[in-house]
Amino acid sequence: MTSTTQERQELVPVWFRTLRDDICAAFEELEDAFVGEHAGQLAEREPGRFVRKQWEREQEGETGDFGGGEMSLMRGRVFEKVGVNISTVKGEFSREFRAKMPGAEENPQFWASGISLVAHMHSPLVPAVHMNTRFIVTTKSWFGGGSDLNPMYPDDQDTADFHASFKAACDAHDPEYYPRFKEWCDEYFFIPHRNEARGVGGIFYDYLDSGDWDTDFAFTKDVGRAFLDIYPRLVRRHMERPWTDEQRRHQLFRRGRYAEFNLVYDRGTQFGLKTGGNVEAILMSLPPEAAWP
Amino acid sequence: MTSTTQERQELVPVWFRTLRDDICAAFEELEDAFVGEHAGQLAEREPGRFVRKQWEREQEGETGDFGGGEMSLMRGRVFEKVGVNISTVKGEFSREFRAKMPGAEENPQFWASGISLVAHMHSPLVPAVHMNTRFIVTTKSWFGGGSDLNPMYPDDQDTADFHASFKAACDAHDPEYYPRFKEWCDEYFFIPHRNEARGVGGIFYDYLDSGDWDTDFAFTKDVGRAFLDIYPRLVRRHMERPWTDEQRRHQLFRRGRYAEFNLVYDRGTQFGLKTGGNVEAILMSLPPEAAWP
Repeated sequence: MTSTTQERQELVPVWFRTLRDDICAAFEELEDAFVGEHAGQLAEREPGRFVRKQWEREQEGETGDFGGGEMSLMRGRVFEKVGVNISTVKGEFSREFRAKMPGAEENPQFWASGISLVAHMHSPLVPAVHMNTRFIVTTKSWFGGGSDLNPMYPDDQDTADFHASFKAACDAHDPEYYPRFKEWCDEYFFIPHRNEARGVGGIFYDYLDSGDWDTDFAFTKDVGRAFLDIYPRLVRRHMERPWTDEQRRHQLFRRGRYAEFNLVYDRGTQFGLKTGGNVEAILMSLPPEAAWP
Repeated sequence: MTSTTQERQELVPVWFRTLRDDICAAFEELEDAFVGEHAGQLAEREPGRFVRKQWEREQEGETGDFGGGEMSLMRGRVFEKVGVNISTVKGEFSREFRAKMPGAEENPQFWASGISLVAHMHSPLVPAVHMNTRFIVTTKSWFGGGSDLNPMYPDDQDTADFHASFKAACDAHDPEYYPRFKEWCDEYFFIPHRNEARGVGGIFYDYLDSGDWDTDFAFTKDVGRAFLDIYPRLVRRHMERPWTDEQRRHQLFRRGRYAEFNLVYDRGTQFGLKTGGNVEAILMSLPPEAAWP
């Protein structure tokens, strides 16, 4: 209840690693469970397995330990491309970012740990998804994150179930969280130049510092668990359904929009590319294939 | 030799329209000339033809004539997707852009006319290309533009011929143009987060106002003519060569980089999306299909 910043910086990465392991295991189970009798040659492939790759953060013009991360990438027969990245980095914000990050103006030192996941599926009938949670320390500290669902063909039941899962995680902590974080998600994952939403929403939260660190951490854990509970269920629900070339084509166009959002607007992408993050890890979110009409 | 701004604003769009017509005719000729004996089913398709679509510019919260443009889009059997856009627009720069555009700080009124072209080819052995020239009027006025070649498999002879064509156009006007505009092109079409060039270069120029409008206009015409001379020759040189699935795959990855550049860095794209330009015309530059590893 009275952990120090140092203790928190040990606890948080352990959780992200555990969540990463659990998610990867669940996704590999889906690869094993796939029968794919309608999906043609995909079922004949071997079930996918995650491949791990570590990286170290470099800070321009300096030597020392600036942390790093571990990417887990799987190209399977259900998951066309899924990346699950964890990282724990530290260093100094550039001048440009000091004004933008809470608590960084007086002291540019930062520490950040997080998990970030994007899944692009072979089947256009299985929704793509994004999930990310993080803990950032400057002279202040806060949690942030969220998850949003990106179906190519929105399905009311899926949308309701996805939202219900995160609503339950939110409601267990504060009845005001879900309505606020749902709205924040809708505002954030919006493509202004297309005047359309990126997907069907979920939750998005940032700068979460209620004054009770343990409960904020517990909430962030529950967001991860909610994702782990609901997304594999949605995949199982649809992964055996046959799809057409026309549906696949539609999926590629929707992925084009996804790429537009990530490259033009996404704060995490901009933040990563401009703070010397690992480019391969940051752009792991980009779709394996996309198209523009 | 002593044309008024009004006369210039009549002459320039006429040239861009003429150039557009000539380029479209040359590209349709390539579609007709394609035998494609090595390219499988592509030769069985009908030769592609450009489809035209007009649009009018809107200025938020205002009514009036703010100009517009005409898109020409062809999906052919040599050209997988090629857009040739002309536009002539006018209005007021937003607050954000006034500080960035020469001569706009004292008066936000602007007028701009241009031609913009991006060609993505079916064959990974035929280079993609971009060409754009424009004339912009604020309280100042200037020409800008350029062209750069984007081969999937750079070929020394193609690169040399492409550069030679623009060098000749430059040298006819000023021996300093080519070295300066070539270097500007290399600097501009660079992807910092990948630490790599987008293509093999060409020329890029901006804010061209030598004091002699007629010669600047003549130079801009020569840039267009240089493009019209060289690019169809490069297409003919390679379009009948057979290619492999692996080469196609490589092409899709290179196109992913192309999309990254356009969405994250390209000034024209940013300018267009943030000044209420026509989204469909601006993003016509995006590849028909792309992939990320």
